[in-house]
Amino acid sequence: MPLTLDQARETLARANRMIANEGVLDAFGHVTMRHPTDPRRYLMSRSRAPELVQPQDIHEFTLDSQIVRPIEARLYGERVIHGEIYKARPEVNAVCHHHAMSILPFCISGAELKPVYHLGATLGEKVPFWDSRDEFGDTCLLVLKPEEGRSLARALGPHWLVLMRRHGATVVGKTLENLVFRTIYSYRNAELQLMTQSLGVRVSPLTPGEAKMAMDRNLEPRPQARAWEYWSIRLKKSGAYPNGKSEKSGKARKTKQHG
Amino acid sequence: MPLTLDQARETLARANRMIANEGVLDAFGHVTMRHPTDPRRYLMSRSRAPELVQPQDIHEFTLDSQIVRPIEARLYGERVIHGEIYKARPEVNAVCHHHAMSILPFCISGAELKPVYHLGATLGEKVPFWDSRDEFGDTCLLVLKPEEGRSLARALGPHWLVLMRRHGATVVGKTLENLVFRTIYSYRNAELQLMTQSLGVRVSPLTPGEAKMAMDRNLEPRPQARAWEYWSIRLKKSGAYPNGKSEKSGKARKTKQHG
Amino acid sequence: MPLTLDQARETLARANRMIANEGVLDAFGHVTMRHPTDPRRYLMSRSRAPELVQPQDIHEFTLDSQIVRPIEARLYGERVIHGEIYKARPEVNAVCHHHAMSILPFCISGAELKPVYHLGATLGEKVPFWDSRDEFGDTCLLVLKPEEGRSLARALGPHWLVLMRRHGATVVGKTLENLVFRTIYSYRNAELQLMTQSLGVRVSPLTPGEAKMAMDRNLEPRPQARAWEYWSIRLKKSGAYPNGKSEKSGKARKTKQHG
Amino acid sequence: MPLTLDQARETLARANRMIANEGVLDAFGHVTMRHPTDPRRYLMSRSRAPELVQPQDIHEFTLDSQIVRPIEARLYGERVIHGEIYKARPEVNAVCHHHAMSILPFCISGAELKPVYHLGATLGEKVPFWDSRDEFGDTCLLVLKPEEGRSLARALGPHWLVLMRRHGATVVGKTLENLVFRTIYSYRNAELQLMTQSLGVRVSPLTPGEAKMAMDRNLEPRPQARAWEYWSIRLKKSGAYPNGKSEKSGKARKTKQHG
Repeated sequence: MPLTLDQARETLARANRMIANEGVLDAFGHVTMRHPTDPRRYLMSRSRAPELVQPQDIHEFTLDSQIVRPIEARLYGERVIHGEIYKARPEVNAVCHHHAMSILPFCISGAELKPVYHLGATLGEKVPFWDSRDEFGDTCLLVLKPEEGRSLARALGPHWLVLMRRHGATVVGKTLENLVFRTIYSYRNAELQLMTQSLGVRVSPLTPGEAKMAMDRNLEPRPQARAWEYWSIRLKKSGAYPNGKSEKSGKARKTKQHG
Repeated sequence: MPLTLDQARETLARANRMIANEGVLDAFGHVTMRHPTDPRRYLMSRSRAPELVQPQDIHEFTLDSQIVRPIEARLYGERVIHGEIYKARPEVNAVCHHHAMSILPFCISGAELKPVYHLGATLGEKVPFWDSRDEFGDTCLLVLKPEEGRSLARALGPHWLVLMRRHGATVVGKTLENLVFRTIYSYRNAELQLMTQSLGVRVSPLTPGEAKMAMDRNLEPRPQARAWEYWSIRLKKSGAYPNGKSEKSGKARKTKQHG
Repeated sequence: MPLTLDQARETLARANRMIANEGVLDAFGHVTMRHPTDPRRYLMSRSRAPELVQPQDIHEFTLDSQIVRPIEARLYGERVIHGEIYKARPEVNAVCHHHAMSILPFCISGAELKPVYHLGATLGEKVPFWDSRDEFGDTCLLVLKPEEGRSLARALGPHWLVLMRRHGATVVGKTLENLVFRTIYSYRNAELQLMTQSLGVRVSPLTPGEAKMAMDRNLEPRPQARAWEYWSIRLKKSGAYPNGKSEKSGKARKTKQHG
Repeated sequence: MPLTLDQARETLARANRMIANEGVLDAFGHVTMRHPTDPRRYLMSRSRAPELVQPQDIHEFTLDSQIVRPIEARLYGERVIHGEIYKARPEVNAVCHHHAMSILPFCISGAELKPVYHLGATLGEKVPFWDSRDEFGDTCLLVLKPEEGRSLARALGPHWLVLMRRHGATVVGKTLENLVFRTIYSYRNAELQLMTQSLGVRVSPLTPGEAKMAMDRNLEPRPQARAWEYWSIRLKKSGAYPNGKSEKSGKARKTKQHG
């Protein structure tokens, strides 16, 4: 049973804040989901830091990344990252673009990111690179034009995470819960790989067989629900909403699981 | 004087949250103890993040890792880690399985973990490795089958900590207090070893004689009680219970020491 | 429309606390701005940790770094850093001097700091070094005399950030918002460069063209406003004012954007 | 004007909590001061984590490390560290023993700790090492016997900080304020040295002349008062007293400066 639009906006706003609260997102980056009943649209916040996003900030966009009902407030500049991926990957229902600290050393150096523990296996068997310079030469590095978004979507191909040189990463998931899990645990996996390589020793990653089985296991409803509850309560403990309402005191509608 | 079952559930729930609050556990991992009056049973939470575990989440399990009174809620998948170790090691009364960030680089690289300062000495004179691949080939890396649990318990042997390749660690203790101490200080010791090795200099660990004397000293009632009080109050300061009760305001039954 | 003096003091106090709250400043360092209506003066707190600065702590100084209306309280010793830069750089309207942890390894080693991702591009195409030893020999390393301040301003030249050997950094901006952004993201860029170099791999920085375009983009009103709102609300969530008033409860005048 | 005994107990308890709140101390370690009016005694908490120490926990000890008025509660085991240093160094009025994470890699590897920035200059021109193994062979590494304390005091000699192999550090100061400053900034200096060395580049430390001038400057009343106010307010913001009183709400006697 799909979510109503109101439930989707509530859940997407929470996902924005959860990922930010785990340290993956700062002032920049964005998290979106496909519209729960109309696959030709997606939901995205107006332009503000993900940690601050509220349900009323979430608006509808066409897959050409045009807002359905124009508003006065500013919109994110890099909407085409999301729109072009939703076009190219019908089974993808959630996208996160970020500049997380542990991921960027791979974007800066070109070192390969690999699954090094079972929880990191959700990053998939291969993590492709995209370099804006290859097709577009010198740019401000942001993905602003439809053709830039399409180029990134092509580089992502059938994978779940694409590294963007000198910029950040874009992660996708079949569900919003999968996306949150993959985004947070690929960030941790990257940190572990950095820590291990700084020892000057060889990293021995998962075999393709292990990676496949561990990913499938992690994306089952039980671990998905367990992690979602955890990040959701950590968010609640972290303090106030920007509008002055406390995450703690709000007569917290119980977190709904949509695993 | 052994604890009552109610006291044990209260203490075990607190131990779960304390270890999580010190950064060793995240959404995953689990902490258990042997039943205080029936050594053929152990106590374990239903499946949820250790940071969220409450006394009412704790249930009884046989050493074959079957729940004594079945419940609707989901159970942890890796129960056999605990059951098989309690079977193999009668003197062990508490077990923690985790994926701590500072420990994993050793699990990923196969580098040897050694006691590098007196507080780390509780990790024991030798830290064995277990690799699921050796006996079971490609798996999802989780320890789900009784034979996998038995294999891990064999690798642990008479030691206090076993590293699990590409997965995490399992730590054991004679008491729950010992377990909490060893889990947190082996995590710190690993961090120190990483920091020192990143200097590119030689690590000079404790001698076996120092390690033995320092471990014995650390497990005496005074340091055990002092550390337990500290972690317990830090937990209290960290904020709200998931059910909305504050760790701070709860008419805090004074922490009981069971050193 | 320029700010009134009262608005400027309120905004500058907030900028002090925001930069401190993001971890760039500790007990030491200072943030100043040029007087909003009199370019021959600048505004600076009395001597106290930036995290504690309140509007009433902010006083007026001449460009020779003399206080306009003398007070009893102690003043910062290194005022000439600010005064001499305001003299030498008419387009600069805000200055921050700090000793941030991620920047200091470059000050200690002489390694070159480079823009490694688009948000770091605001550090500019070249980051010059200044070594007090070159002109002044052994000193306590603080910049206390007018000639020391002038020497530092010469080393800064037309750039946006100057590294001070064995000491810290000084950052400048056309607006206070630009300064806050550049200070925080150059700190992050430095951390990323450290993380990447610790991998033992080659760092591939932005091309000069990318750096220029990314800096221009980052300093546009939209990203400036978005980051300011984010850091401002994070500050609010971080807790109490030193005078006992809560950042949270204060009948928060809405943050004004002066992009 | 010396402090009264009550003021000294209040200030020493606060210093314990301040140093712990900055991350230097955990469950273990201790901070003491010489009795304000009787130089043949010193003040020390009963055995508990420094972060939890309250004025009523502070008791008087002779320089032979015997408690003046015996109590039921447990005492720290390593009292002789403090007593023997107060005997050997009449100008020292405060001592801190700790196991801080950034300092331990030097204790583990034997790498030399050097002042790398002006705020680190308070660690002094030379940081000696002490290895319990040299005189005492295998021990539990704790400094428990008077002769062990005397040996450590000899290794400290006329310096301000002594590194203890495989164990930690002991820091001394002429005043409690100096001690807090030196403890926290030597910890930061060590972290910076680690970060810089992990770059694989040469560290260029302060010259002896710079180190001397920077230390003298840092220990002047103005920077001492500024740092003390900062750490004191950060402590207040960090939350509840262990006895349930909030650091925030307590009708905070204004911090007294004794620079």
